[in-house]
Amino acid sequence: MPLSARNQLSGKIIEIQYGDVLVHVSVRVGKNVIESVITRRSAEELGLKKGDVVKAVVKSTEVMLQKD
Amino acid sequence: MPLSARNQLSGKIIEIQYGDVLVHVSVRVGKNVIESVITRRSAEELGLKKGDVVKAVVKSTEVMLQKD
Amino acid sequence: MPLSARNQLSGKIIEIQYGDVLVHVSVRVGKNVIESVITRRSAEELGLKKGDVVKAVVKSTEVMLQKD
Amino acid sequence: MPLSARNQLSGKIIEIQYGDVLVHVSVRVGKNVIESVITRRSAEELGLKKGDVVKAVVKSTEVMLQKD
Amino acid sequence: MPLSARNQLSGKIIEIQYGDVLVHVSVRVGKNVIESVITRRSAEELGLKKGDVVKAVVKSTEVMLQKD
Amino acid sequence: MPLSARNQLSGKIIEIQYGDVLVHVSVRVGKNVIESVITRRSAEELGLKKGDVVKAVVKSTEVMLQKD
Repeated sequence: MPLSARNQLSGKIIEIQYGDVLVHVSVRVGKNVIESVITRRSAEELGLKKGDVVKAVVKSTEVMLQKD
Repeated sequence: MPLSARNQLSGKIIEIQYGDVLVHVSVRVGKNVIESVITRRSAEELGLKKGDVVKAVVKSTEVMLQKD
Repeated sequence: MPLSARNQLSGKIIEIQYGDVLVHVSVRVGKNVIESVITRRSAEELGLKKGDVVKAVVKSTEVMLQKD
Repeated sequence: MPLSARNQLSGKIIEIQYGDVLVHVSVRVGKNVIESVITRRSAEELGLKKGDVVKAVVKSTEVMLQKD
Repeated sequence: MPLSARNQLSGKIIEIQYGDVLVHVSVRVGKNVIESVITRRSAEELGLKKGDVVKAVVKSTEVMLQKD
Repeated sequence: MPLSARNQLSGKIIEIQYGDVLVHVSVRVGKNVIESVITRRSAEELGLKKGDVVKAVVKSTEVMLQKD
């Protein structure tokens, strides 16, 4: 079931910080670390844990650009 | 001037598609391509062109996770 | 491959309006119509057309509430 | 005072989970449940409680599509 | 009908640029100009025009901070 | 390093409410108060505190309009 979101980056979870309603998840993607904040409920339903292979998914309208 | 957005990925612009109000920009980041949709006005003010080194910037609350 | 986005509403495409960079897609979900703006590139790669069954996907942090 | 957001779905609150800064609210809309994360401050100022009739409001640029 | 979005800034439309699917609207708010991209359909249904008094509405999870 | 986000409003922090994963920051901008929810980690790394001068940054696709 393909999704319209154009950014789908494969990586590995390196850290999960649990909050009451949300969790902060860090994912190593190549040489970068992508950080994501999702609901605690989703993290638990997906059974996310350190070492899991996941995709970080971002809609292209959410991506800004900064010139060096 | 550091920005709170936790995802700031350095890359190089490989394509810009101009629309009337928005533009679709593709940025190579490591082995991935990040796609961004920003206003045409910003693209012109920043003078974005193919080959430019830029950062793709994403707020962590905009990043979803998909389990493999 | 389950996705963390908590809102995934099944429906049928009833209209697609093509722009240069983006498209405006209307999806009937029960008695409601959900409207989505995605890249033209995604619409073409997914081969979206009127009558297609799709899911409208929304991250919960993007949903506001209005009291009646 | 009409709002530009194209998705405004009427429903009834079936659950509120309170966090320190944010709350996770579930709203029954037809046969679906829409989940929203808003600030605790807004939930308290609006006096949201189980059984309240609300609209779930989503900007169309925040809606992705997934093909079945 | 109060909305959970915490940022609702009153201003006056100073410019509208029409695209095929979206429009780019500039709103003077105090000494600042707020720029918004909404669907052309919403702009037409609301009958937006230069000089109109409007509120620019932003969910707090969409606001980043940059330190000077 | 200029950023594509078109809304960058200078102001002064008047309140920070700490949650476990996120923080709720209020910034006075002219006669308005802008509220932002960012990660606790960013707030700590930026060393944000009451009285700091900051910019509130918002991508134009995140701004809705409401007609009075």
